[in-house]
Amino acid sequence: MEFSLTTLGTASARPTSGRYPSAHILTVGGRLFLLDCGEGAQMQIVRNRISIARIDNIFISHLHGDHVFGLYGLLSTLSMMGRTTPLHIYAPAGIEKIVNSLKELFGDLMYEVVIHNIRCGEPTLVEEFRQLEIWAFPLYHRVETYGYIFREKVPPLNVYKPAIEKFNLTLEEIARLKEGTDVVRVAEDGTEYTLPCNELTYKPFLPRSFAYCSDTTPFAKLSGWLKGVTMIYHEATYSSEFKELAKSNFHSTSQDAARCAAAAGAQKLILGHYSSRYKTLDTLLEEAKEIFPETYLSKEGMNFDIPLQKGDFSSEKKF
Amino acid sequence: MEFSLTTLGTASARPTSGRYPSAHILTVGGRLFLLDCGEGAQMQIVRNRISIARIDNIFISHLHGDHVFGLYGLLSTLSMMGRTTPLHIYAPAGIEKIVNSLKELFGDLMYEVVIHNIRCGEPTLVEEFRQLEIWAFPLYHRVETYGYIFREKVPPLNVYKPAIEKFNLTLEEIARLKEGTDVVRVAEDGTEYTLPCNELTYKPFLPRSFAYCSDTTPFAKLSGWLKGVTMIYHEATYSSEFKELAKSNFHSTSQDAARCAAAAGAQKLILGHYSSRYKTLDTLLEEAKEIFPETYLSKEGMNFDIPLQKGDFSSEKKF
Repeated sequence: MEFSLTTLGTASARPTSGRYPSAHILTVGGRLFLLDCGEGAQMQIVRNRISIARIDNIFISHLHGDHVFGLYGLLSTLSMMGRTTPLHIYAPAGIEKIVNSLKELFGDLMYEVVIHNIRCGEPTLVEEFRQLEIWAFPLYHRVETYGYIFREKVPPLNVYKPAIEKFNLTLEEIARLKEGTDVVRVAEDGTEYTLPCNELTYKPFLPRSFAYCSDTTPFAKLSGWLKGVTMIYHEATYSSEFKELAKSNFHSTSQDAARCAAAAGAQKLILGHYSSRYKTLDTLLEEAKEIFPETYLSKEGMNFDIPLQKGDFSSEKKF
Repeated sequence: MEFSLTTLGTASARPTSGRYPSAHILTVGGRLFLLDCGEGAQMQIVRNRISIARIDNIFISHLHGDHVFGLYGLLSTLSMMGRTTPLHIYAPAGIEKIVNSLKELFGDLMYEVVIHNIRCGEPTLVEEFRQLEIWAFPLYHRVETYGYIFREKVPPLNVYKPAIEKFNLTLEEIARLKEGTDVVRVAEDGTEYTLPCNELTYKPFLPRSFAYCSDTTPFAKLSGWLKGVTMIYHEATYSSEFKELAKSNFHSTSQDAARCAAAAGAQKLILGHYSSRYKTLDTLLEEAKEIFPETYLSKEGMNFDIPLQKGDFSSEKKF
């Protein structure tokens, strides 16, 4: 199934002619998740040929304007379009005041906005779908801020077809093997023998994961929380030249982002949230690549795919 | 001096991939006036190489989201940029609630926002600068809505230089003539004689004017109020095919806009605020041109100049 990130906005606080405030669409299977909603998000979504009507879940990192001002327009447009299905917003406390002010000042919405207030001191499961888990974790910024991890669930094991025939496996035995349990049989002579799960089964694919790390100052625990995540988005407001400024306003340099991705053992790092002082982003990229080569610059309209990771099926397997 | 309109947004309620919500910059001399402030206005301003720091006056037609959602981002960015000079917003009652909600939810601004609540039943002078008058007038929409007229003031007359020499005019006499008054002198024989103003002076230029007619249903009085306005912006949400729909939601067709411009005797009509149903706008333009040939479609980034209109200086004039 599809697992990809579409960049809608790469600006930090102050937008530039080419950069919109923070907003991203994560597509997992048929589901679209909006990550932050800076001003212009609804236009950027339409421009990227994505239907805003398909967004049922919005995840907000923190309540600074450049991450939420787009909610006013997006929520209003959805109402004008006649939406009736509930819209879920996951965000720190205070989001309800923003949504309520929209309703009070501009009229009620045609649909229900279900607020999920995020509050945690360590990674916490906040939402679950059939094939996906969503975890929130704290970031360290000037206001209460959270990152989010989207994890594909571990799929049930597949049983090798030739094994099913050779051992004439019953449905019950197949079910046990898919769960990862050995099958123990009793032979006619009363002796027990085992059909070992690890020989008869294979993983159909390896679960993928994506972590969204919006505004934050670097901190030791973060890479531990992101251990083994496939792809990480991490803010990179500044180059190393401004690392003191980054510290003082609780932001990161591209090197901070790269160190985090390296320590977490990620496969890919996506940078964003660039200071408006940067006309070109070469320095940010180069400084990050020295530490973590698989670093990429996000730009408006770019799509970063996490391809399906094949499991351990072996065509040589004999029974 | 420059007198021109820059289009930032041409969408009606629902933005499309190419159309932003309502926002326009009117430049008169060195002054920039922001007319409505739909979502994304600050990005559109930057994209058009206009400095948002130069905006001191914002005129809002009405408090529907697609005309004001951009205020949140624009006002915040100005504060982040360290603005300290007051910002003036002219709008119907209720705007203060929007500005206050921004301050309460996202922190106070570094500068003062001076609210000018507009409330009038007919054209009313609401602001005045050395060379410019700004008038508000009511429009008829679903909520309290106002249009605005920007009028160059009538300049003082110029006195022909040869006349100054020939009649040896005193500074006082020149001042009287510039005001449009005849100069009456007493000859040595005691008889009075007149130096007629209309022969010794000429108009340096003819005052230009621009009217902004945002969301409205057509009504008889409007064209009378706009009599002689040089250039009119008038919303044209629909083509004639949807004139009933236009009526029912208090909007105009491009033909309504054209009839208004024709009856007002305008020189130029600019259309905008297009329904998202229109991929191309040819029909709206053609239908308007049949009634008012000098009709133009506004599009994001376009600039409509009102050239200086020469006065009645005559090089043939003899004294």
